[in-house]
Amino acid sequence: MTTDYTSMWKDLGLDLTAHDALLGVLGQAYGDIYQSQKNRPSGMGYFDFVVSEVHGLRVKELMDAKAQGRKVIGSYCVFVPEEITLAVEAIHVGLCSGADFAMDEVEKYLPRNTCALIKSAMGFKLAKVCPYLECADMVVGENTCDGKKKAYEVMGSMMDNLYVMDLPQVKSSEGKALLKAEFLRYKDAAETLTGKTIDVTALKQGIALVNNKRKAMARLATLRHNASAPISGLDSLLANQIFFFDDPVRFTDSVNALCDELEKRIEKNVSVADENTPRILISGCPMAVPNWKLPAIVESSGAVIVGEESCVGERGCRNLVDDSADDVDGLIDALVDRYLAIDCAIFTPNTERTDHIKEMAQASKADGVIQYTLNFCQPYAMETMPIENELEATGLPTLRIETDYSQEDMGQLQTRVEAFVELLK
Amino acid sequence: MTTDYTSMWKDLGLDLTAHDALLGVLGQAYGDIYQSQKNRPSGMGYFDFVVSEVHGLRVKELMDAKAQGRKVIGSYCVFVPEEITLAVEAIHVGLCSGADFAMDEVEKYLPRNTCALIKSAMGFKLAKVCPYLECADMVVGENTCDGKKKAYEVMGSMMDNLYVMDLPQVKSSEGKALLKAEFLRYKDAAETLTGKTIDVTALKQGIALVNNKRKAMARLATLRHNASAPISGLDSLLANQIFFFDDPVRFTDSVNALCDELEKRIEKNVSVADENTPRILISGCPMAVPNWKLPAIVESSGAVIVGEESCVGERGCRNLVDDSADDVDGLIDALVDRYLAIDCAIFTPNTERTDHIKEMAQASKADGVIQYTLNFCQPYAMETMPIENELEATGLPTLRIETDYSQEDMGQLQTRVEAFVELLK
Ligand code: SF4
Ligand code: SF4
Ligand code: SF4
Ligand code: SF4
Repeated sequence: MTTDYTSMWKDLGLDLTAHDALLGVLGQAYGDIYQSQKNRPSGMGYFDFVVSEVHGLRVKELMDAKAQGRKVIGSYCVFVPEEITLAVEAIHVGLCSGADFAMDEVEKYLPRNTCALIKSAMGFKLAKVCPYLECADMVVGENTCDGKKKAYEVMGSMMDNLYVMDLPQVKSSEGKALLKAEFLRYKDAAETLTGKTIDVTALKQGIALVNNKRKAMARLATLRHNASAPISGLDSLLANQIFFFDDPVRFTDSVNALCDELEKRIEKNVSVADENTPRILISGCPMAVPNWKLPAIVESSGAVIVGEESCVGERGCRNLVDDSADDVDGLIDALVDRYLAIDCAIFTPNTERTDHIKEMAQASKADGVIQYTLNFCQPYAMETMPIENELEATGLPTLRIETDYSQEDMGQLQTRVEAFVELLK
Repeated sequence: MTTDYTSMWKDLGLDLTAHDALLGVLGQAYGDIYQSQKNRPSGMGYFDFVVSEVHGLRVKELMDAKAQGRKVIGSYCVFVPEEITLAVEAIHVGLCSGADFAMDEVEKYLPRNTCALIKSAMGFKLAKVCPYLECADMVVGENTCDGKKKAYEVMGSMMDNLYVMDLPQVKSSEGKALLKAEFLRYKDAAETLTGKTIDVTALKQGIALVNNKRKAMARLATLRHNASAPISGLDSLLANQIFFFDDPVRFTDSVNALCDELEKRIEKNVSVADENTPRILISGCPMAVPNWKLPAIVESSGAVIVGEESCVGERGCRNLVDDSADDVDGLIDALVDRYLAIDCAIFTPNTERTDHIKEMAQASKADGVIQYTLNFCQPYAMETMPIENELEATGLPTLRIETDYSQEDMGQLQTRVEAFVELLK
């Protein structure tokens, strides 16, 4: 960072020492993993810059917007509709939770057997190291998995601005009615927070902004299908991660600029990997910043990642909202349709997810699939075995990886991934 | 067992060798734990008999009823309304899942990090050792915790009669509407299964049968509040377990007869424990037959258990259904009200549960509370810490126990429980 943001962080109530430690870890990991990559597209320069300013410039933008009366809403899951947030001119930020922090403190409140994402979310709060969380006017949790559902009960006592959205478990007509009721309740809460009322124009604007982001991501995803591998999985993952907190217009433009460059690369056959490099699809739990552990191992083992079937990836980005309705209620229905199509493992049954993995594997010409699960994530862990059976039945080799945010299993993971990559050659 | 049921078990498709092994384990545990107790009420004779005939006479009754055209419905959770089952003249049996069986096979389908109850349910199916499961015409699963919700997807491929009931996660108006829709759907399924139509009379009859069972259990629970400890926790737990599969009328009569005897015991000050024996309330996950591990340790450590805040206990039994409505829809509403009051940890928020634990502790004059959680049960594990804080703030000592069905941690549990009991003296 070029500017000194210390006073901003202090004003936000961050614990400066702990925060320095976090930035140190992040910077170190980024340097080791990202800057050692070869032949990166120059369009990644923008995303590198965003990372270098992750707690600086972007937070400053949020603080400036707040000074002008705008509100910031934080969210932990792709079920919270950014379209509604934008329709009240608020700013939507995904709260990442991709690193262990203050684990001793966290384990006073949560069982040890809790997934790393949830522990990290609480650790960031307890240690006061996340400027996004601290500057948020409202934080939205959701009843997805048991772990998050119950953890929000505990986190509610640690912050006074936690709002919890209920979610269905089945895509039935009652499930759909519940999601609609909850989106309307969220709309009310967003309106109350900002003092604005959502009309058709505002909601259509919100939908357009997010649809454009999603279209750009879909374009990137499709370019990665090209046999010449114009971009690494690590770089693509970074774009997917920044999707959650960057300014939507600037982000969309930057992804499209990157895609323009990738199209030229494809024409000229400029590649990040040799022709016969095994192509791998990653499928499973979300990978939040700075959780780059598994992709770094995969791509340093001589494979290239060609897609992420993940909330930080295609599960989170795909499907646009139909903006053809001409009243707010009709647009909310369209939002419900789009969000209810998310094939998160919290739903039962969730066979669409297996179908989508197969589609992605085929479209991206994947040679194998790595199923990535965070330890103690029951919904995704329980889906791994049926999915493995289905994929292997189509001749697609799979590898199951269960891990967390620690570095302790790096050696073991490396060995297993290398053996898998060898098998795909 | 006095009769030879081998041919019945064979007809049911049980694996006779594995089944013998299971009965052996059960008989051994029962002998060790139950028959070593002193000064038991003679009314326990009936329950001892039921256990001795657990896979014999009761199963024979079900087979005879089936031969006469009645149906058997199995259930894994106290949310499935037995009242509706009885209204179509079917027989409702709780499927216990209290012992490890075929764990190697189970772990081909489910992650190792799954709670013992769920693994046991699948183990019983894979090993073909449960006559109740095999004779059931329909088996009802429910979307409660993530573990069960996802496990039913896998179990659905192992049986062709699995029906899954959806459940809400929040007690909102939408949650209530969902439960009602699901109870109506269950009513339809039960009607289709049996060819019967539920009218007011039939439903009132079902409600009366179950209310009577629950009243008898409430009577037993209240008698245990008496300072003289007229019955052990182990014996009371046994009644709570048999609640789930015995004939409702005979069961109710037997519990009431036991209660008559306990009233006399109280008058005459006949007790199972000395006057100063520490009184312990157990709170947490269900204890299915033959999971008597923790209560056996507690009561052999010089304490007496005075209540179970558990689905196999007061959480499952309490609250009657209001039978005053004079149409089926009104009675279904009353069922919904009763079942929605269950304070299972799958709900959020679930502060009623803490209140209920406090009430139970006070009413039963408990000196301490043991929170019992099955390993990898996130909903209950996540509630333990806030509950501990609340209880300790009222001066009530608590102990947290996380365990499973294995015997490996017996020594360690014994040591911890003994230390806790010492503390309460
Ligand atoms: S995996 Fe499911 S719960 Fe987690 S962020 Fe994605 S949609 Fe939300
Ligand atoms: S990774 Fe799994 S356990 Fe963790 S928050 Fe997501 S769904 Fe829940
Ligand atoms: S603890 Fe909850 S999910 Fe388990 S049996 Fe009881 S009500 Fe059902
Ligand atoms: S004990 Fe917990 S994890 Fe196991 S079935 Fe019951 S609620 Fe689910």
